Amino acid sequence: MNEVNKKFLKDSHLIIELKLCTVRLLDNFRFPWIILIPKRKNITDIFQLKKIDRNLLMQEIVYSSKIMKKTFPTFNLNVEKIGNVISQLHIHVISRSKKDSAWPLPVWGVKKKTYTKSILNENIVKLQKAFKV
Amino acid sequence: MNEVNKKFLKDSHLIIELKLCTVRLLDNFRFPWIILIPKRKNITDIFQLKKIDRNLLMQEIVYSSKIMKKTFPTFNLNVEKIGNVISQLHIHVISRSKKDSAWPLPVWGVKKKTYTKSILNENIVKLQKAFKV
Repeated sequence: MNEVNKKFLKDSHLIIELKLCTVRLLDNFRFPWIILIPKRKNITDIFQLKKIDRNLLMQEIVYSSKIMKKTFPTFNLNVEKIGNVISQLHIHVISRSKKDSAWPLPVWGVKKKTYTKSILNENIVKLQKAFKV
Repeated sequence: MNEVNKKFLKDSHLIIELKLCTVRLLDNFRFPWIILIPKRKNITDIFQLKKIDRNLLMQEIVYSSKIMKKTFPTFNLNVEKIGNVISQLHIHVISRSKKDSAWPLPVWGVKKKTYTKSILNENIVKLQKAFKV
């Protein structure tokens, strides 16, 4: 088991601990956006995971994707492993709609906008309910 | 089996047909960049694939990632499913270096620059050799 990078703790909120991944909601009002962080030490790339964990990661990406699609208005899902800034392996799962502020581009060109406390709490509750926390 | 979207045919070059995916090199001098296109009809999202295909996709992402890392100068790999513009499911696997023109941001903010014919051919040959075509 490893520790979640401090930058994630600051910018996101715990939703659930799945078997492999910690799931956290990013504090960005512009897009419903979660990250999946595999609880394995010193892993920066998908190919460094053992085969059993890679298949588990795929399973948890699929499970989380379906929940995101069900929970938020979603025209399309973006699923991304970037890790240029924070190297600890993490997968972004982002609900995209044609009306969001970056469409049709990926989300990275748009400055983040934090949630109001009430919408943040509402989304945490919605997600935790969907994940059956 | 499905057909590869015409936009891909125009902007990229066939490297190899794997069991699940067609692998193509994008014509962008700025980043060594391949796409993996699962040969399944009417699939736009990873979660629409059958479980056996999802695990195969994971396996081919890992295989291709290792080849990209071995073939090109790579500080980090970006692995991304976007699909906002072309909905046919495809996964980007991009070799990133700290000296590339978008670092540390994802690649999407930088305008593409096509290869010269000789460097394009060189990279196709390198990749096909690595994939043992």
